[in-house]
Amino acid sequence: MMYFKSDYTEGAHPKVLEALEKTNLISQSGYGADCFCASAAEKIAAACGRDDLDVYFLTGGTQTNQVVISTLLQRFEGVVCADSGHIAVHEAGAIEFTGHKVLTLPSPDGKLRAEDLRSYLDAFYANESHEHMVFPGMVYISHPTELGTLYTKAELSALSALCRERKLPLFLDGARLGYGLMAPAAELTLGDIAELTDVFYIGGTKVGALCGEAVVFPRHGMPAHFATMVKQQGAMLAKGRLLGVQFDALFTDGLYFAIGRHAMALAIKLKQAFLDKDYPLFIDSPSNQQFVILTAEQRARLEKDVAFEPWEKLPDGRYAARFVTSWATTEEQLDKLIALL
Amino acid sequence: MMYFKSDYTEGAHPKVLEALEKTNLISQSGYGADCFCASAAEKIAAACGRDDLDVYFLTGGTQTNQVVISTLLQRFEGVVCADSGHIAVHEAGAIEFTGHKVLTLPSPDGKLRAEDLRSYLDAFYANESHEHMVFPGMVYISHPTELGTLYTKAELSALSALCRERKLPLFLDGARLGYGLMAPAAELTLGDIAELTDVFYIGGTKVGALCGEAVVFPRHGMPAHFATMVKQQGAMLAKGRLLGVQFDALFTDGLYFAIGRHAMALAIKLKQAFLDKDYPLFIDSPSNQQFVILTAEQRARLEKDVAFEPWEKLPDGRYAARFVTSWATTEEQLDKLIALL
Amino acid sequence: MMYFKSDYTEGAHPKVLEALEKTNLISQSGYGADCFCASAAEKIAAACGRDDLDVYFLTGGTQTNQVVISTLLQRFEGVVCADSGHIAVHEAGAIEFTGHKVLTLPSPDGKLRAEDLRSYLDAFYANESHEHMVFPGMVYISHPTELGTLYTKAELSALSALCRERKLPLFLDGARLGYGLMAPAAELTLGDIAELTDVFYIGGTKVGALCGEAVVFPRHGMPAHFATMVKQQGAMLAKGRLLGVQFDALFTDGLYFAIGRHAMALAIKLKQAFLDKDYPLFIDSPSNQQFVILTAEQRARLEKDVAFEPWEKLPDGRYAARFVTSWATTEEQLDKLIALL
Amino acid sequence: MMYFKSDYTEGAHPKVLEALEKTNLISQSGYGADCFCASAAEKIAAACGRDDLDVYFLTGGTQTNQVVISTLLQRFEGVVCADSGHIAVHEAGAIEFTGHKVLTLPSPDGKLRAEDLRSYLDAFYANESHEHMVFPGMVYISHPTELGTLYTKAELSALSALCRERKLPLFLDGARLGYGLMAPAAELTLGDIAELTDVFYIGGTKVGALCGEAVVFPRHGMPAHFATMVKQQGAMLAKGRLLGVQFDALFTDGLYFAIGRHAMALAIKLKQAFLDKDYPLFIDSPSNQQFVILTAEQRARLEKDVAFEPWEKLPDGRYAARFVTSWATTEEQLDKLIALL
Repeated sequence: MMYFKSDYTEGAHPKVLEALEKTNLISQSGYGADCFCASAAEKIAAACGRDDLDVYFLTGGTQTNQVVISTLLQRFEGVVCADSGHIAVHEAGAIEFTGHKVLTLPSPDGKLRAEDLRSYLDAFYANESHEHMVFPGMVYISHPTELGTLYTKAELSALSALCRERKLPLFLDGARLGYGLMAPAAELTLGDIAELTDVFYIGGTKVGALCGEAVVFPRHGMPAHFATMVKQQGAMLAKGRLLGVQFDALFTDGLYFAIGRHAMALAIKLKQAFLDKDYPLFIDSPSNQQFVILTAEQRARLEKDVAFEPWEKLPDGRYAARFVTSWATTEEQLDKLIALL
Repeated sequence: MMYFKSDYTEGAHPKVLEALEKTNLISQSGYGADCFCASAAEKIAAACGRDDLDVYFLTGGTQTNQVVISTLLQRFEGVVCADSGHIAVHEAGAIEFTGHKVLTLPSPDGKLRAEDLRSYLDAFYANESHEHMVFPGMVYISHPTELGTLYTKAELSALSALCRERKLPLFLDGARLGYGLMAPAAELTLGDIAELTDVFYIGGTKVGALCGEAVVFPRHGMPAHFATMVKQQGAMLAKGRLLGVQFDALFTDGLYFAIGRHAMALAIKLKQAFLDKDYPLFIDSPSNQQFVILTAEQRARLEKDVAFEPWEKLPDGRYAARFVTSWATTEEQLDKLIALL
Repeated sequence: MMYFKSDYTEGAHPKVLEALEKTNLISQSGYGADCFCASAAEKIAAACGRDDLDVYFLTGGTQTNQVVISTLLQRFEGVVCADSGHIAVHEAGAIEFTGHKVLTLPSPDGKLRAEDLRSYLDAFYANESHEHMVFPGMVYISHPTELGTLYTKAELSALSALCRERKLPLFLDGARLGYGLMAPAAELTLGDIAELTDVFYIGGTKVGALCGEAVVFPRHGMPAHFATMVKQQGAMLAKGRLLGVQFDALFTDGLYFAIGRHAMALAIKLKQAFLDKDYPLFIDSPSNQQFVILTAEQRARLEKDVAFEPWEKLPDGRYAARFVTSWATTEEQLDKLIALL
Repeated sequence: MMYFKSDYTEGAHPKVLEALEKTNLISQSGYGADCFCASAAEKIAAACGRDDLDVYFLTGGTQTNQVVISTLLQRFEGVVCADSGHIAVHEAGAIEFTGHKVLTLPSPDGKLRAEDLRSYLDAFYANESHEHMVFPGMVYISHPTELGTLYTKAELSALSALCRERKLPLFLDGARLGYGLMAPAAELTLGDIAELTDVFYIGGTKVGALCGEAVVFPRHGMPAHFATMVKQQGAMLAKGRLLGVQFDALFTDGLYFAIGRHAMALAIKLKQAFLDKDYPLFIDSPSNQQFVILTAEQRARLEKDVAFEPWEKLPDGRYAARFVTSWATTEEQLDKLIALL
């Protein structure tokens, strides 16, 4: 069986494992106050080209969204996102669990557009009853989005400008950021993201780590007592080093970007193969998640040898399916998959 | 510098790391639906001598306490524990964050006694206003306790009987369970604990893993939709395998117990050295946390070479301090420490 | 100035006030354990034609929705409603404040239809990732709806049958129930509602009381320890008698229904006047909220003498507006308003 | 049966009822934006001798505590109070329901003393692990306390000075404030309380209203968007006028103070009668709650004719009991009670 189901079906990039071994017996304080977290934070700052970053390491994506959003919002506020946003759909109500509403705007492609946000905000404040409603308190986007799409520089700049005008923190969920940054069509760099957002996270779990997401607050924007709130949500690791060591490895010698480039080369090759073999795209995705439409026959045939993600059943009886590449995908596997198409 | 500050200052037991490497490229489904979690659960069941266990792997101790307690309590209920209980003191209000009160009973030694619990329960239900109060909904104990003490078999049996009589789930926090089981004075086995509690966790983070706690529900007592609630609290790992692989290693060839024995032998040797050198014990602890009283001069001298945990300043100007052994402590380090005393 | 802005712009129906006076010095226990609450509950049961009701009196509508929903849902569940539902829009996130998501389905007229609910439920359980999503745990409808519309008996029966099939409690928000029951087009009786729902509330605040809503659980369906959870949400009155006395008066000699009939006669007369004078209806409402479209000129002219509710600005520059009648509206006021149209 | 069980066993002071009647048909906007709330707020400001007050009317005591505390605390903070504090004991976990811990300090008489608070705060910040603990974020006291005791001016001044030094808002629960202000031994005036606290509430429910508590924020200290948060907690009345009218009446011609004086005269007379007849005081209370010790025989005899509050069973078999006077207690009732002693 070949795995194209997701980017979290194997362990860690070998260099990450190697770093865990090499540092294993070095004694360090707990709870993130270790030399590895410090070093990783420095390397992330260098990769962003800035020296004004607060960096905090958390374990997983839903946890990170929950911690960031619930620590940035005031209690009468909700978070605005596209209706396909992970926080709105696939996190089992983790945001609501902390008392906040997720305010969704329709989006055909997973991206939240500045003009839609502006209309929503204008209508909200024009509503005479808005004091009886949930106030928009911050904006959540993902990049790449849940549908694999990428923001252009113009799009993110417009969102950012609007958010600053309205004093709404802009949070970018980068669970698959490594792939998004290295997509051939990518316009946004890590530096752009640090410039244009108020907080974002650099996904580790899906980009070569065993676990871990690096939350970055540019302009030293981390809320006061953030660590206490992390603890309060059960999200603090005693051995914070586990996250520091891994991110230190990912940001040494450009490993994080190399992983992104590797997976993207394979993803684009796969996309081209789908197009060459007349598989219709379900979504025209520029990143490491590829969405195609399969007939029932194609689906049944492929399922014998390939693990991929069923996405949704279409009204005409065909299926949308998702194929994902990662640091662990090999050229050989990809060629075998293409041969089967 | 020698580290006796805690049992989470190094990485993982070498055999745990080795297992992570060996399994690294095996593709598996995410979210705990992998072969390693399944295998680890089986080995834990075997170690408990039972076949009616539900096992779920979480990442850290506070998270585990928060998830277990908030999924077992009804919303008008609180959790009863000793006033030194970790959930009452050192988890930044993680239980209250989920809407529940921690109901504390005084305890001189960290243990909750059946007779104190009975008095509390009787008084609660005798109170005519108890419908305006927080109902006791479950009982939390730790073993070893936060003060290093251990329940006797008689004590846990009495608590268990009372909890069953009153239909209160009994939850045992085993963050340091490996050390508690292997203490020379230990009366309780893993099988006893599975028999006498309704849910407990086997600590990994402090007993040789990079992270991870195995929550065990005997008598198939896991609440319905537990995984959804784990997700809702941001506590589900995409790569659940990280926890499965580690616990599989810890429960292969008795590694978990070997780690416990190793650290306990050193802890008892250290305790004896303290006694031999006339350091007064602050608490007479039978487990891997040793608490002694240091003069200001002793403290200053030791701090030059040894990292240990300041515990509290005593009214007479001396200090209580905690020294902890673990899987990573070596005989050589211990001998050097003893030589310094 | 004539008030048609809402049905809560005056105090209480004179008979309600009279009852408060007459009972004022009778000493009774607090917290709802008084003879007036007991009597009111009996009269409500009689009005429903049943003897299996649990009745509990709360103070206001948002509070009631919050208490009922948060005590009936399990913590991994959300409440399903039409996207115009009061709980989804105008309660400042009160449901999310208790940790639960509001799951909205599109509805053009404020009513949730059985077929839409069925499609949603089928899709939810067919989704392979539904364990990572918020489970539908109950269904909320309002009658009359926020748009003044009414469920037919067939519609409510279909919803009820579906909810029972899927074991989802069906909750009917009756903030304006008195008007809905007495609308000329009404098909549903209080008995039907008790038969077809699992919990509903009989609105007092908008139907002649100073404050107060009577929550009714048919088939003795009140959750265990409901009063403790009411207290926990800060919703219990020390002088519960305030609610009991008022509902006792409202359900003595059919006052509640008389109030409904009075307001409905005026509302229908107003609607006819709008139609006669060629004011287009914004919504064709059969109940005491009437929605019409005003030109800017009409709006400006009416605003000089009449307080009504601006509803929304239409794309063509006209305005939708809401006019509401109540127990306090007089035939004279209505005639004056009609003369101004 | 004579009622001395509590101060909420009857309806409202006749002048309050009269005001409700007189204003009944005056149309006003909802949600507190009515002329009565505005007028009541002005009269309260005058009674405090200040012009910098924000006043907000809520319905009941537990609700008020819950709203005030949960809107003033940051999410990593808890509220400090005496271990007998109403919020700690008798509110069914209403504070924890909003995610916050109640941090209790021992107090023999219901009063929180500045020196105890100072010791607690110093120890908290001296604790090296305090970032893993719940931060003290505000201070709650009640006046009179749950045990009937009163703060002296020196005591409240010391607490206030400490709270300001440590930037902790000081909140005074005045559920029975009217009685506390008019106790013969009272040192504190309404003006003192406005000067020395950051927020307090003037209890209406127990001092002559049907329901209602007036929350006062001196120095315009009401949190931004307070009304939205009130709505979010289900605590906003549609007919806010109900509270405004009542407080307007209570603060017209000194009615609130007259009620206090009346009940206090009776309470002191009752206390003297207990002393004269050799009933030992359980607590030496200067306010309208009187606590005495009854033998089983005395208790049984009195219970035939008098409703009073059983307080607790003493180890020697006797009983502590509470007798309460209010605006509704008459001299005749009191004399009959005294005759029975």
